[in-house]
Amino acid sequence: MKSSVGEAIKLSVFGESHGAAIGAVLEGLPAGHKIDFDFMLSQMARRAPGRDNTTTSRKEEDLPEILSGALDGVTTGAPLTLIIRNKDTISKNYDNLKVNPRPSHSDYAAYVRYNGFNDVRGGGHFSGRLTAPIVAAGAICRGILKEYGIAIGGHIFNIGEVTDNQLDPVNVTAKELDELSMRYFSLVNKTQEDKMRQEIEKARTDLDSVGGSVELAAVGLPVGLGNPMFRGVENVLSNILYGVPAVKGVSFGAGFGYSVLKGSNANDNMYYDNGKVVCKTNNCGGITGGITNGMPLTVMVALKPTPSISVPQQTVNLNTKENEELVIEGRHDPCIVPRALPALEAALSIGLLDLMAEGGKL
Amino acid sequence: MKSSVGEAIKLSVFGESHGAAIGAVLEGLPAGHKIDFDFMLSQMARRAPGRDNTTTSRKEEDLPEILSGALDGVTTGAPLTLIIRNKDTISKNYDNLKVNPRPSHSDYAAYVRYNGFNDVRGGGHFSGRLTAPIVAAGAICRGILKEYGIAIGGHIFNIGEVTDNQLDPVNVTAKELDELSMRYFSLVNKTQEDKMRQEIEKARTDLDSVGGSVELAAVGLPVGLGNPMFRGVENVLSNILYGVPAVKGVSFGAGFGYSVLKGSNANDNMYYDNGKVVCKTNNCGGITGGITNGMPLTVMVALKPTPSISVPQQTVNLNTKENEELVIEGRHDPCIVPRALPALEAALSIGLLDLMAEGGKL
Amino acid sequence: MKSSVGEAIKLSVFGESHGAAIGAVLEGLPAGHKIDFDFMLSQMARRAPGRDNTTTSRKEEDLPEILSGALDGVTTGAPLTLIIRNKDTISKNYDNLKVNPRPSHSDYAAYVRYNGFNDVRGGGHFSGRLTAPIVAAGAICRGILKEYGIAIGGHIFNIGEVTDNQLDPVNVTAKELDELSMRYFSLVNKTQEDKMRQEIEKARTDLDSVGGSVELAAVGLPVGLGNPMFRGVENVLSNILYGVPAVKGVSFGAGFGYSVLKGSNANDNMYYDNGKVVCKTNNCGGITGGITNGMPLTVMVALKPTPSISVPQQTVNLNTKENEELVIEGRHDPCIVPRALPALEAALSIGLLDLMAEGGKL
Amino acid sequence: MKSSVGEAIKLSVFGESHGAAIGAVLEGLPAGHKIDFDFMLSQMARRAPGRDNTTTSRKEEDLPEILSGALDGVTTGAPLTLIIRNKDTISKNYDNLKVNPRPSHSDYAAYVRYNGFNDVRGGGHFSGRLTAPIVAAGAICRGILKEYGIAIGGHIFNIGEVTDNQLDPVNVTAKELDELSMRYFSLVNKTQEDKMRQEIEKARTDLDSVGGSVELAAVGLPVGLGNPMFRGVENVLSNILYGVPAVKGVSFGAGFGYSVLKGSNANDNMYYDNGKVVCKTNNCGGITGGITNGMPLTVMVALKPTPSISVPQQTVNLNTKENEELVIEGRHDPCIVPRALPALEAALSIGLLDLMAEGGKL
Repeated sequence: MKSSVGEAIKLSVFGESHGAAIGAVLEGLPAGHKIDFDFMLSQMARRAPGRDNTTTSRKEEDLPEILSGALDGVTTGAPLTLIIRNKDTISKNYDNLKVNPRPSHSDYAAYVRYNGFNDVRGGGHFSGRLTAPIVAAGAICRGILKEYGIAIGGHIFNIGEVTDNQLDPVNVTAKELDELSMRYFSLVNKTQEDKMRQEIEKARTDLDSVGGSVELAAVGLPVGLGNPMFRGVENVLSNILYGVPAVKGVSFGAGFGYSVLKGSNANDNMYYDNGKVVCKTNNCGGITGGITNGMPLTVMVALKPTPSISVPQQTVNLNTKENEELVIEGRHDPCIVPRALPALEAALSIGLLDLMAEGGKL
Repeated sequence: MKSSVGEAIKLSVFGESHGAAIGAVLEGLPAGHKIDFDFMLSQMARRAPGRDNTTTSRKEEDLPEILSGALDGVTTGAPLTLIIRNKDTISKNYDNLKVNPRPSHSDYAAYVRYNGFNDVRGGGHFSGRLTAPIVAAGAICRGILKEYGIAIGGHIFNIGEVTDNQLDPVNVTAKELDELSMRYFSLVNKTQEDKMRQEIEKARTDLDSVGGSVELAAVGLPVGLGNPMFRGVENVLSNILYGVPAVKGVSFGAGFGYSVLKGSNANDNMYYDNGKVVCKTNNCGGITGGITNGMPLTVMVALKPTPSISVPQQTVNLNTKENEELVIEGRHDPCIVPRALPALEAALSIGLLDLMAEGGKL
Repeated sequence: MKSSVGEAIKLSVFGESHGAAIGAVLEGLPAGHKIDFDFMLSQMARRAPGRDNTTTSRKEEDLPEILSGALDGVTTGAPLTLIIRNKDTISKNYDNLKVNPRPSHSDYAAYVRYNGFNDVRGGGHFSGRLTAPIVAAGAICRGILKEYGIAIGGHIFNIGEVTDNQLDPVNVTAKELDELSMRYFSLVNKTQEDKMRQEIEKARTDLDSVGGSVELAAVGLPVGLGNPMFRGVENVLSNILYGVPAVKGVSFGAGFGYSVLKGSNANDNMYYDNGKVVCKTNNCGGITGGITNGMPLTVMVALKPTPSISVPQQTVNLNTKENEELVIEGRHDPCIVPRALPALEAALSIGLLDLMAEGGKL
Repeated sequence: MKSSVGEAIKLSVFGESHGAAIGAVLEGLPAGHKIDFDFMLSQMARRAPGRDNTTTSRKEEDLPEILSGALDGVTTGAPLTLIIRNKDTISKNYDNLKVNPRPSHSDYAAYVRYNGFNDVRGGGHFSGRLTAPIVAAGAICRGILKEYGIAIGGHIFNIGEVTDNQLDPVNVTAKELDELSMRYFSLVNKTQEDKMRQEIEKARTDLDSVGGSVELAAVGLPVGLGNPMFRGVENVLSNILYGVPAVKGVSFGAGFGYSVLKGSNANDNMYYDNGKVVCKTNNCGGITGGITNGMPLTVMVALKPTPSISVPQQTVNLNTKENEELVIEGRHDPCIVPRALPALEAALSIGLLDLMAEGGKL
């Protein structure tokens, strides 16, 4: 079970939902960066459950402890390790998860993969809780990117049938992204917030859940970041973004919309703007041939509805080999999109810092 | 410029469109596999240009030469290297590509990335021609997967506004996939072929191009393949699929469609079918928690329209720092979707073999 | 600063001597292995300082806490993280290490490498204390190897001019190695112990230190482990063994002794012994062409004298750019060979488990 | 069978002694470097057999063909592939190598590893001939290092009992190393050449072989190259040096000699020399804590005697399971040390360039 990623910046994520602690190791960080702990905590807060009734009522006080790699809050260049102790775990019996795997959860696949030895309590290593160390690690990487003039942000693009506006792929600014990154329910068009919350609330009262998607962006990236073929920006970022549980689709720029376009509509014509090469449109999402072209990087990420729902479902009993009905109890998010957003921004930040380091830009 | 991918099976792709040769090295192949060269050539033929007027008229006789790693057509376990000599390259002057980068091509990004030293002739290392060694390497990997009862296939899902049917994600068979893989213009619903070809022909006569998407699938995969987080099936496959030029979106199962679903519609209920755990639906595309669950693996891949179009476009002159109009001449595909399909199937095969090898399943 | 190693089993080591904690993450461990904590503690004890006057008087109670990857002492297959809290650190001012780098220590090189931001207290991430998590992680790997009939052990080969006997490279047994591994001052010929201790004691009273070497061995390895060229057994093991501070030489089998041999004396003739192919001699140390041949694996590792000595030395003042005399104070090992031995055995175990996993033998 | 190495610069070596071709792919090279083909050929000539009667009489015209990654002799930044066609291979029957494995050769281990499918002709992928692409690739890397003021060289340190002088580890110069690198039988003390050649000639007439060792060095390296623990200079270099067949020992600086030293003799005192921090001695071989300190890098490498000797040896018959006598026929080097030297210098160059690229120094 490998849970690490990256070449020049390596992220290793560890822990289980109900184990002693969860955490992450970041290798390859430059020395001398002052960590902005307030920013880290703001991002942890965006991801934390229990904020309002769009999320699970489970409370977490996810204060990461830095075990290594920083001295007086400044990176030393050594591997940076942070851990978050697990608390507020209800010690109920989870053994039934090995008997009755939950539909569309990892339970059955993991049972086979690990011969039944995997920790199933709360989803174990597969839990969405593992995004907490990603958010913390991502906040550090984002702070370093900021030193290089790179801003990252994102917003909920849709929850079920309710849709936000897209970011302007040509003119989106660092300021706009920074602001989005400080909000819990980040939207470009705030007037959609009520409708989206109603969509989630409806799912909650129906004992159901609802999917969604988010749009991420980065501005200020140098031209020439990335590589052709298998270490291109798209490869590296999709690899790390799929590390966030529930992600089922990742696209760049016009993404799947490209498939119905003509070249004459799709191509991003170029011109000089104050001596800088820019594009009139940005369908390619800032990446051509796997390499950044200086335009804003834009990514769309699709998230499936939380599979933990309380309506009755059909599953199997791995002991008796009989089919059974399952009703999942406990506290669950009716929609994980708002909480997944900061984790996806964090993953994007880590992936981009890896590309910056690999490209000798740090 | 790294053009390699994989952990237990490593693929390294090299070459430029107008250089001496293109090729690939595959490391980690099991010894003793008899390579099916007829199958390899059938896949090369699917990818080859000049088959009909949906493609460029450039002819290639892409007969790969195996330089190492096989003896009498049987793998030895040593790194397998295959090369394809470049012929039929028109020796015109490509210097203007360094002066007038083509919109939505890699030209400008690569110019900056490589300080102007990259080989621009025919797109150099960024050329779609680099998919030829991927197809050849993929054919070998696919042959090995076949020994383990795994079948891979795909079809054009849409070209512009013309859409094929989707595969049945629950009941798709190896036989169906094998048949799709032997066709050039693979479709589930062959009655759409004429309309699709008209869409391409229209783009060609308009001096334009058109995008599309393909659907890929694999059946027969063991339950328990892959890992949580960053080496999951989705991570590994999206990483390698984005290595095929023009790919701008990769999703699994219901993909972006998940974002408008409720959990109660989306979850794949489970039951026993002749002692085997199966799902009633397959929205998760055969993957939960990054690990295969035994259902067919399904992937959607979006491709942008070929950026090489002959209508006038706006670009810059990197020497004079002036804006200029550009008309691209030469032979170009009005739609690369049919030719990209076998490359994507090959990439899928290589990624899956890597996961099989990493999982100790070979 | 990357401190990770391995392909199928990845080890990541983190922490600084005087930071919050040191630790390690092991990825890729098989699920279902019951960890032998008594064995782990026995190995920690062999490495611990303060046992007698051959070592520093600093006391450590290095009880590793498992944060993840094990449930009820059984591996789950998820990344296994263990940490050891730092205690008993004397909070003196270490700033002079940035001003007066200690000869033959990492101080100066690290100062330049990390622009002065590295944690110098107690050597920081370069401290020999970082071998504690290696020993703990190695104990787990060794337990897994034991399930496959593989035994690992080692002994002090020489300390200064006092030399032990070599292991019998043909007939060394698992029992012999197991016994050596349970001792603190492991020797084949115990009659040399007094002389060796005197050598160390002399160094201590002279405010000096003394170097040495150790011999390691493994028996029970399957034939056919490893690869030619860059992932051979020698490559993998030398890579990880050089991760233990103070190692300056690694050789296999006859090692440097080979350089004065003739082929007719050096070659290991083969014969059948009860249906098994064995060698009459074992100069190749169980490895030919980078791959195990079934004979015992033997390795020699040279360790430099601890550079921390209290006799006056010449160094520079990085602030004033003047030359200065330096007298290092504090508690230091006059000889780290006995304590390095369990760390080297651990590193060997981790490397071999990586090769076993990569070779699909687990 | 993985035959690749490196992080920022990746080398992949492929081919078999009697296959179609051998070669290498180098990924990550900086764009814009003009390859010095004369230098490459000079190094190929140093490695080539058939120069005089110290080597096998087999003739090779190893002219590498660059397939990709260079345009008009200048690197493009794309993967650089070079191949060398195999000629002059005697088509005898090598099947007996699968029946009677040669003592101390890879035959038996590889037979088990690859289930008998490995190519045994001339040693296949295990052949010393595979060092030819390493030499060619190393020449390119060395040329790039030269641009940064780094010189690499080496000499035969001993052949059997005849020993050369060591390089002066403190004062060795680029000029000295450059000169050594242009000679076939490189020695510091040329008066030893006759005795060494006699040692080899004696082995040849005795139908025997003789081992030896070489000393390598690099000057001009920046301070601060490398990392602590597992990606230190020693780890990276020993990993790649063990990739050259017959290497059985690698040590740095005083190496195994350290084991009999006291700290007071071993430590390298520091002082300012014209504003530069230097050491009075260089026992650490230019590396402390895995990181360069600016002093010359020195490495010792032990090579075993060629196992191919023509005196009768004992081996097994894998078919009959009987013990048999073996007499190896054919052309063999009585001593591979002179020809291994340029391959080891090349491996050193590739490893150092990887460290330079990883450290963002290119």
